[in-house]
Amino acid sequence: MENNDKKAWGGRFAEDTADLALKLSESISYDRRLARQDIRGSRAHARMLAARGIISAKDGETIQSGFDQLEKELAEGNVTWDVTKEDVHMNLESRLTAIIGDAGGRLHTARSRNDQVATDTRLWLRDACAQTVGAIHHLQSALHRRAQENVDVLLPGYTHLQRAQPVRLAHHLLAWVEMLERDRGRISDAVQRFNQCPLGSGALAGTTFPIDREQTSKELGFREPTQNSMDTVADRDFIAEVLSAWSICAIHLSRFSEELVLWCSQEFGFVKMSDAYATGSSMMPQKKNPDMAELIRGKSGRVVGALVSILTVMKGLPLTYNRDMQEDKEGLFDGFDTVLLSLQVMAGMVATLSFQEEPMARALKEGFADATEIADWLAERGMPFRDAHHVVGRLVARCTREQKVLAELSLEELQQEHAGFDDTVYEVLNMERAVERRDHVGGPARAQVQAQLQRWQTLLEGRANALTPTDPI
Amino acid sequence: MENNDKKAWGGRFAEDTADLALKLSESISYDRRLARQDIRGSRAHARMLAARGIISAKDGETIQSGFDQLEKELAEGNVTWDVTKEDVHMNLESRLTAIIGDAGGRLHTARSRNDQVATDTRLWLRDACAQTVGAIHHLQSALHRRAQENVDVLLPGYTHLQRAQPVRLAHHLLAWVEMLERDRGRISDAVQRFNQCPLGSGALAGTTFPIDREQTSKELGFREPTQNSMDTVADRDFIAEVLSAWSICAIHLSRFSEELVLWCSQEFGFVKMSDAYATGSSMMPQKKNPDMAELIRGKSGRVVGALVSILTVMKGLPLTYNRDMQEDKEGLFDGFDTVLLSLQVMAGMVATLSFQEEPMARALKEGFADATEIADWLAERGMPFRDAHHVVGRLVARCTREQKVLAELSLEELQQEHAGFDDTVYEVLNMERAVERRDHVGGPARAQVQAQLQRWQTLLEGRANALTPTDPI
Amino acid sequence: MENNDKKAWGGRFAEDTADLALKLSESISYDRRLARQDIRGSRAHARMLAARGIISAKDGETIQSGFDQLEKELAEGNVTWDVTKEDVHMNLESRLTAIIGDAGGRLHTARSRNDQVATDTRLWLRDACAQTVGAIHHLQSALHRRAQENVDVLLPGYTHLQRAQPVRLAHHLLAWVEMLERDRGRISDAVQRFNQCPLGSGALAGTTFPIDREQTSKELGFREPTQNSMDTVADRDFIAEVLSAWSICAIHLSRFSEELVLWCSQEFGFVKMSDAYATGSSMMPQKKNPDMAELIRGKSGRVVGALVSILTVMKGLPLTYNRDMQEDKEGLFDGFDTVLLSLQVMAGMVATLSFQEEPMARALKEGFADATEIADWLAERGMPFRDAHHVVGRLVARCTREQKVLAELSLEELQQEHAGFDDTVYEVLNMERAVERRDHVGGPARAQVQAQLQRWQTLLEGRANALTPTDPI
Amino acid sequence: MENNDKKAWGGRFAEDTADLALKLSESISYDRRLARQDIRGSRAHARMLAARGIISAKDGETIQSGFDQLEKELAEGNVTWDVTKEDVHMNLESRLTAIIGDAGGRLHTARSRNDQVATDTRLWLRDACAQTVGAIHHLQSALHRRAQENVDVLLPGYTHLQRAQPVRLAHHLLAWVEMLERDRGRISDAVQRFNQCPLGSGALAGTTFPIDREQTSKELGFREPTQNSMDTVADRDFIAEVLSAWSICAIHLSRFSEELVLWCSQEFGFVKMSDAYATGSSMMPQKKNPDMAELIRGKSGRVVGALVSILTVMKGLPLTYNRDMQEDKEGLFDGFDTVLLSLQVMAGMVATLSFQEEPMARALKEGFADATEIADWLAERGMPFRDAHHVVGRLVARCTREQKVLAELSLEELQQEHAGFDDTVYEVLNMERAVERRDHVGGPARAQVQAQLQRWQTLLEGRANALTPTDPI
Repeated sequence: MENNDKKAWGGRFAEDTADLALKLSESISYDRRLARQDIRGSRAHARMLAARGIISAKDGETIQSGFDQLEKELAEGNVTWDVTKEDVHMNLESRLTAIIGDAGGRLHTARSRNDQVATDTRLWLRDACAQTVGAIHHLQSALHRRAQENVDVLLPGYTHLQRAQPVRLAHHLLAWVEMLERDRGRISDAVQRFNQCPLGSGALAGTTFPIDREQTSKELGFREPTQNSMDTVADRDFIAEVLSAWSICAIHLSRFSEELVLWCSQEFGFVKMSDAYATGSSMMPQKKNPDMAELIRGKSGRVVGALVSILTVMKGLPLTYNRDMQEDKEGLFDGFDTVLLSLQVMAGMVATLSFQEEPMARALKEGFADATEIADWLAERGMPFRDAHHVVGRLVARCTREQKVLAELSLEELQQEHAGFDDTVYEVLNMERAVERRDHVGGPARAQVQAQLQRWQTLLEGRANALTPTDPI
Repeated sequence: MENNDKKAWGGRFAEDTADLALKLSESISYDRRLARQDIRGSRAHARMLAARGIISAKDGETIQSGFDQLEKELAEGNVTWDVTKEDVHMNLESRLTAIIGDAGGRLHTARSRNDQVATDTRLWLRDACAQTVGAIHHLQSALHRRAQENVDVLLPGYTHLQRAQPVRLAHHLLAWVEMLERDRGRISDAVQRFNQCPLGSGALAGTTFPIDREQTSKELGFREPTQNSMDTVADRDFIAEVLSAWSICAIHLSRFSEELVLWCSQEFGFVKMSDAYATGSSMMPQKKNPDMAELIRGKSGRVVGALVSILTVMKGLPLTYNRDMQEDKEGLFDGFDTVLLSLQVMAGMVATLSFQEEPMARALKEGFADATEIADWLAERGMPFRDAHHVVGRLVARCTREQKVLAELSLEELQQEHAGFDDTVYEVLNMERAVERRDHVGGPARAQVQAQLQRWQTLLEGRANALTPTDPI
Repeated sequence: MENNDKKAWGGRFAEDTADLALKLSESISYDRRLARQDIRGSRAHARMLAARGIISAKDGETIQSGFDQLEKELAEGNVTWDVTKEDVHMNLESRLTAIIGDAGGRLHTARSRNDQVATDTRLWLRDACAQTVGAIHHLQSALHRRAQENVDVLLPGYTHLQRAQPVRLAHHLLAWVEMLERDRGRISDAVQRFNQCPLGSGALAGTTFPIDREQTSKELGFREPTQNSMDTVADRDFIAEVLSAWSICAIHLSRFSEELVLWCSQEFGFVKMSDAYATGSSMMPQKKNPDMAELIRGKSGRVVGALVSILTVMKGLPLTYNRDMQEDKEGLFDGFDTVLLSLQVMAGMVATLSFQEEPMARALKEGFADATEIADWLAERGMPFRDAHHVVGRLVARCTREQKVLAELSLEELQQEHAGFDDTVYEVLNMERAVERRDHVGGPARAQVQAQLQRWQTLLEGRANALTPTDPI
Repeated sequence: MENNDKKAWGGRFAEDTADLALKLSESISYDRRLARQDIRGSRAHARMLAARGIISAKDGETIQSGFDQLEKELAEGNVTWDVTKEDVHMNLESRLTAIIGDAGGRLHTARSRNDQVATDTRLWLRDACAQTVGAIHHLQSALHRRAQENVDVLLPGYTHLQRAQPVRLAHHLLAWVEMLERDRGRISDAVQRFNQCPLGSGALAGTTFPIDREQTSKELGFREPTQNSMDTVADRDFIAEVLSAWSICAIHLSRFSEELVLWCSQEFGFVKMSDAYATGSSMMPQKKNPDMAELIRGKSGRVVGALVSILTVMKGLPLTYNRDMQEDKEGLFDGFDTVLLSLQVMAGMVATLSFQEEPMARALKEGFADATEIADWLAERGMPFRDAHHVVGRLVARCTREQKVLAELSLEELQQEHAGFDDTVYEVLNMERAVERRDHVGGPARAQVQAQLQRWQTLLEGRANALTPTDPI
């Protein structure tokens, strides 16, 4: 083994090691995604340094014009990323210095990469959250529009995947709008919480230079500077919080996807997918698969995985910065890309779904969704509910045997089970009427659903104008 | 195999099956923890039913007095939980009916276990969140008090577990207060979001009875009724959100625990634990182990596990209620117990820690935490920082060789490395002075730390009066 | 705040603290589940001590008779667990000493709780694994029996939840048997790996007494003693490995449960659940919910949660024993209970399922599962497959429009799409024949399925006799 | 909103949608990593088709020569991947057909992408597992060599991060070798289990062509063909199993990393890192940070995240193939890259560590690691261990007060606590002797450690020759 191992570690060992260690530690392959944010933060920092006389006014101007040039190069895709310069900060600073000379080196005064990367990440995440909130809005709008179009369509609501009680399709669709609204709220609360400026926290203990943290904070649109330098460079809980909000959102999408997969099956047949969101099989000519819904359902797994990753990374780390924390970014980027794309494709899919009223109506009719109604009819006429439940149970069993629905039983047949039945029972077997009786806040009756549609109309319209389109990040 | 299997499934098979299925599906072994909330919700529901004439005024009163009796039995521990009655709802309803007769049966009018359990869980979770917020407050207060006592104590701040720059112990302790404040915020935001009343959502589609959802919502202290019956019985995202907030909090505690374990080691020696929070070894007479900190660090794993559980449970479930969702409670209860107890014990541990100033001072002195200061001194006198860095690097290497600290180098020795040194350099080697120069918002200088202490004093005092003691849940 | 806090920490503070710290650190509330294993390990340890002359032969005998008494008390439920004695080891040792006096105190010679608990846990886990392997066997047997009964039943196989190609129900059921076989293999491999005896590793560095580790290892049925004392008390990877194997098994069960939930829906209607495994609704007389399948599906989440917990607990712990590791047991116990019960109930459910051949046949007929067959028929007659695919696509579209199946198209209608059709095409539209043509290893043709049934018959029979019934643990 | 939304979905909508759906569903951006395996599988499939006369011998030869060309293009990096061709299978088939014409189209006969991708992934994973096993071997070898060099170095073993008992450094290092051995075993067991050939399973139900599954299985080095076509295309448990084995391995590495971070701290000072594995600070001249150890510690989080992802993805999926399963690859690839690189860098780090004997010796001396020895000395002379524990406790307290170690107490001082002390007690205070007394299997005595070193020497040497170098994958 000795010889063997000598060979293994001999010769090019030093070089190999350097290569592997560099490969393990570099971040430029992914953190270059923060380039714009890095420049934005650096510009603000440079302006502050000049304003406080820490660097000269001239250096300050030179730095800004250097960044003008650098941003142009970035936009044109002309920046070469060098892995030996490790990360986005060193790559950009190096290029800046190449453009403007010594003044570039003075930019890093009163700053450390520890507060710099925390600033970049928060700026990026603020944009990323705005984009997912925008995508949630578009999906809510698509659902709302489809709900408006389908107020008159009835279908069975399900519990345990068993047909249970009749509801309006609009009511069903608005349930998803409610869930998305909470997703939106969680993301917004997170942004509000983390929107503080890390700049000035230095490596961990601030800086000895006479900086003005309010100025940079304000220029970068933060609520205020962070209040403790050690906390600032040590914590990544804002990443865990956003990944948690995105995970819950992804789980919601997985549930809606499951429903679409079910509804697309030949057994349900409640919707047809637009061809743009389904695929055929190269082998089986009859197939039309709801691939997009399946993929969105599956992709929830990777967002949850990213959440678990960041929590595991942070577990047990003492103050302050530890290099482990570099592992915060890839999961965050992937979580964002996954959730944003899932929301966008889901919105397109919803907008182009073709609802199939006939299978819904058939399912409603055959599903004995009116069984509760007869039981209620009997209960209202004084029969203990438990007894009424038994009477209806026997009627359902008979219908199943004879392949009928309840409304097809003749009055005589009804009276064979219970003498007290009369003609008025047929009124409650009307599904429309059954839905209409559920007329309270949050219920499926037409008036209630219309009120909800109106509430959402107002809310969504009000927000549409406030949506600020951001560049892809 | 046939014979074998016949035996396996024969004979007592039917009974066995019933037993196993019951064991799989019962929830009374844990959801009886919701008993008080269940009664509270039922009382409000009954009052509303009576107010709306859905049950008689007399029945309404009978129900309330039945609950008086039942609550007394609960307080006395005299309620027998019957596993064949499956869950807390059926157990309580059954006992109520035994006490007051038929009126008990009318309580369930216009209600389903689906909206009932959602109401109970939210009521319980509101209390649970209040208790964790209270425990966070006490831990923050303990940290704040220890910070106030230790404004004058200096120690090295660490990055990469390497001594980096000098900070005040108070500054270090306040970093943890900041993290806990965000934990508090996350929990509060969650409560604000989920504080809506599910009652009236029925099994999934509301109810045909003329209920008043505003009344029950108001009586139970909810912000408003939920707005969509299907969403209400289908979603558990409030559980995932709170478990996520608790997980992040538990991760914070794991990090603080790691620090305490490090500080208790003979190598660091920065703190001594009170005997109440340490244990000895029955085998090794010299041992004093920081068991509580280790346990709190480890217990973060179970909170993260509970979060993963609920996300996995909900993944891919279509609307509306599915029985899988019964799996929401045990992880939630366990997460709460774990986080609450961890916070409480941590507060006691912090309050009784004995900080060891001498080892902190020695670590500061020997850690070359003043190296940056000399480099800055040189830079301020015109030497490029890169060169200054090299000069100091050589000085540090010499000190390491000769087992000295920088301040112990004579002026001659300093000048051997760089002729420009003069007596004034010894001023910056004063650690106190080094800290004082970091005088900006969020920095460790005395004035800044005092300002932060005052800010927290005001905040924490203001909240102390608002803390509402709740019973153990 | 001062006053407030004084009150909070004053007065009963010392007591409260002690109570909370005890509550955080005690394990007797759950590790008493290891009582039998603890005694078994102690008996072996005592016999070895006596054999090596470390304790006297008389003490050795006294200890064994003391355990006779203690085991009797345990069996009768007469042992009082005392939380102030913290854990199962101290509780049992204390009771033993109360029974036999001083000799009880000598039992702990050359042993530490660190190697003791590792031994107990491995003994327990070996039994637990045997039980889950047994439960897997029973579920495999149930599936195998149902497969044997249903070789002649055809149904559509699904991809993307779309009907794809015809298969035998037996073939479909055997797919689950295959998955369970891998689950069994994973558990068995884990047992083989961890079946080493920790006794003698002491606190971390072994013991100075002249022990015989081979003797205890052999008596306790371990493969060999562990080979490194520090590794032995530091590692819990056997727990992570088993929880991982159980998690994958639970995920398999979640998938089978999903299928059962689908098949129970009115839309599919492929199975009817025995009443023992379904529940009705107290509100909706027509409902029959597959609650057990839903619960098993959901319970997969808690096993995955337990796996994440132990991985998170162990992350970043240095050698050797750290108190965090006490957090290994509750998740393990819960994972075991969950998987065992899920397997048992699933076996009962499978054994009592009523397969509905008519809906399966209808789904097969209406699902165009024969579309590939016509395409193949054309391809075999020289048409490029791509063109054949198009021809059949048009035929399927026509059938959908006219609500027909392919076999109902007349020869004329077929020839309208492609002139080359002749009577022989009707042969391939026979579903039975389509299945029979898939006649290779692992395919659904009768001969292949029979061969697999025979293979499993032999395997399962061979194992049935080797199953060692263990007591509930 | 109407107008707004019209704009949002109008105009380029169709195109946008197509783009987004393609972006969601394409896999070529990552599954091209399977290109070599895809070709290898296709070659075997083609040979079997020709051997069975399903394609002509000429076509068979043409296909092989086409692949010669294609592999050359791949090696030269000349293959253009086209995202509109979705995945690696379609891209390669398309290029093959461009090279050889029609025969390329016949390759897909009797195959589906469902069995094809399962084959590719298993082939890739077999290589990936071999590589991680190889990297484990190298790390074990490096640890073994360092252990051999350090048999004479003593240091305190720790429990609870408190100095506990003296051990040999070699013994400590071999603990990690043991853990890695189990990691190796888990990976090997997984390979053995999944090493079955999926080819021939088709889309889900095999194929109607007269294929020979044994031939392809044998040619590709699989143990046997899979036994059930539906299981084969439906399951991904081999991915979960390997990710679980890698996760446990990554957790081991996180623990070793923690130890290295501790040992590199100024407080411990037990090791110095080679410069190749440490970084300085651009700000703080005195810093030398153990970045590689921190990164490896952190990267354990992403492997655990990948494991959680695949479990979540698979949860609740019915048979057979569902598109969600496409989400299996990226986490697998990332888990492999992470674990392999972590192992490699760790091996280099271990090989170049500089152990610092003096700080270890000091820690041993000052840590009262000999306290147990005196207690044992007293116990062997008849004092009840409990009393001996108290005597030593008082001696330790005195030493702490007087800043001495036990061996520095005079006989008089010892006798002040207990009259029975005599000169022979100083013998047990020799740390070397204390270690030597722990002389049993798995203990730290020299003979035992030498035996373990020899056992590993033989094992590792035997394996070194069997390591098959594989190309990077």
